[in-house]
Amino acid sequence: MKVSLAHGGGGEATKDFIKKEFIEKIKRKSLGAISLDEMDDGASFFVGNKEVVVTTDSHTVRPIFFPGGDIGKLAIAGTVNDIAVMGARPIAITSSFIFEEGFEFEKLRKIVKSIDDLLEKCNIAMLAGDTKVVERGKIDEIVINTSGIGICDRGKTLKDSCLRPGDKIIINGSIAEHGTAVMVARGEFEFEGEVKSDVAPLVTLIDDVMDIGGIHAMKDPTRGGLLSALYEFAEKSEVKIEIYEEDIPIKEEVLYICELLGIDPLCVANEGKVILSVDSEYAEDVLKKMRKNKFGKDAEIIGEVKEGRARVIGITEIGGRRILRPPYADPLPRIC
Amino acid sequence: MKVSLAHGGGGEATKDFIKKEFIEKIKRKSLGAISLDEMDDGASFFVGNKEVVVTTDSHTVRPIFFPGGDIGKLAIAGTVNDIAVMGARPIAITSSFIFEEGFEFEKLRKIVKSIDDLLEKCNIAMLAGDTKVVERGKIDEIVINTSGIGICDRGKTLKDSCLRPGDKIIINGSIAEHGTAVMVARGEFEFEGEVKSDVAPLVTLIDDVMDIGGIHAMKDPTRGGLLSALYEFAEKSEVKIEIYEEDIPIKEEVLYICELLGIDPLCVANEGKVILSVDSEYAEDVLKKMRKNKFGKDAEIIGEVKEGRARVIGITEIGGRRILRPPYADPLPRIC
Repeated sequence: MKVSLAHGGGGEATKDFIKKEFIEKIKRKSLGAISLDEMDDGASFFVGNKEVVVTTDSHTVRPIFFPGGDIGKLAIAGTVNDIAVMGARPIAITSSFIFEEGFEFEKLRKIVKSIDDLLEKCNIAMLAGDTKVVERGKIDEIVINTSGIGICDRGKTLKDSCLRPGDKIIINGSIAEHGTAVMVARGEFEFEGEVKSDVAPLVTLIDDVMDIGGIHAMKDPTRGGLLSALYEFAEKSEVKIEIYEEDIPIKEEVLYICELLGIDPLCVANEGKVILSVDSEYAEDVLKKMRKNKFGKDAEIIGEVKEGRARVIGITEIGGRRILRPPYADPLPRIC
Repeated sequence: MKVSLAHGGGGEATKDFIKKEFIEKIKRKSLGAISLDEMDDGASFFVGNKEVVVTTDSHTVRPIFFPGGDIGKLAIAGTVNDIAVMGARPIAITSSFIFEEGFEFEKLRKIVKSIDDLLEKCNIAMLAGDTKVVERGKIDEIVINTSGIGICDRGKTLKDSCLRPGDKIIINGSIAEHGTAVMVARGEFEFEGEVKSDVAPLVTLIDDVMDIGGIHAMKDPTRGGLLSALYEFAEKSEVKIEIYEEDIPIKEEVLYICELLGIDPLCVANEGKVILSVDSEYAEDVLKKMRKNKFGKDAEIIGEVKEGRARVIGITEIGGRRILRPPYADPLPRIC
């Protein structure tokens, strides 16, 4: 057997691969709080009355600069969001850079500037780092690994397994922009307009909604898109999720590109989106608050959690119902 | 300007590169404890009366299997040692894998087994992970990033800047084995014998000596070798270090290979070595205790800390003195 691109595509193939080749084979996976087994956005351990949340991500996006961002912005936003959706306040990152020999300083400086800007905006420290260089041709330009550290009160983390029947599902804006922007940036097909990646740190937005209350779970729908994230919710919480397909925000040009490429926008990566499962009594207040934040102005309630077999059901405007199948892999390789 | 292999070689070139391109450009580098600026083996932050130490490393060794170890063992040992030399107890790692499409499962399973064995031995949890796959030819087989997390009482971390004149410098065994083993494994020159990498986790050894007391600083001399690590000690603590050159343990076959390649074994990477700066009153007890641990059986006192300009002086058996110059880069690329 050999590793294929699908094993890194964020869908069912990745999930199986990680379960069989890592989780089943590693004995020590827990320090008593959130463990590797849970395959959540991060894991945690207790220190006194606090809970420290950690997460890690390697970034291999191609191209490294794309409309709306670059690999540096992606690395910070992705990591920060993974911590924030666990209900913790991100406080620090570590960052490890692997360069291809010959990589231009000019490019590096742009990337470091993106990183610095975002760390500044989010009030997050870069605590530790590492740099390696490999021979020309032995890596594709640059790879950045970022690990994130966040903190919250003990027991206050939010897990994918905590959705409750009756919850409303909210998303903060329009989907599939990161994946399509990266695809367009590769220049492999003709497209006149511009699609910008949604890559953004969601710390302030999440701070805002946490103040309202009623949030049972959050997740950033990256590789594998919205549908993959919803399936993780459904399976871990053992609930059915019904989605009002027409209410999912999507920009026209994004839909156009997805149709052109023959891919389902529900399975395309986002890098500035969060889905929330919110107690129905709080849902309207959460929505209102989100819409006041620039990263949530197009927020919508897009579905509801029901009791039932763990799957995602799409409901059309005229009441049609269809089972939405979890993606085997993100249709676009190397988008993060 | 372009990134060169020397920028990742762990010596003066790497230090300058990191200072100018990262440290001077990133504004937020501290949470009030040990910061990125200090360029120590790791950094830290406080949680109540505890101090959490973090570190990160990407591993790009070629070949990925070599006598004495593999990239998995290297990733865990390297990270665990970075935490332990800060005076903290390693408790968890995060691990991120990037595969080249087509990487054999058989190889992966060997690597994961190495990782699992070491985590088990050291009682360390793998808390979080990530997997990415890139197209064939876009990365050299596999890259593993590991971030480490350790914990100690607040204010009890050991820093490179804490050497004191009068301290003895101790090393736990013979040098330059990792770098030479990896070079031999590449098969680029003829050598009949076998050199094994010293790659090993030093948690138990460091636990042992911490019990004795009198330890002011520790460091694992990896990229850039013993000499690079001694220079970091000398510069950060603003002291002179005198080294008794004949007392530095080195195996004959390692010395032979270094001579064959025309490189200085003092600058070749180790992955199972630690140097300690120890109060002279405790030095003999620390040495005795180290020698009882299998990772310290060849331990020696190899030098002394003196007041004076920050540099490393080599003293020969017949009393000759020479200034040892810090290496510009590790003479061997991609050894970790």
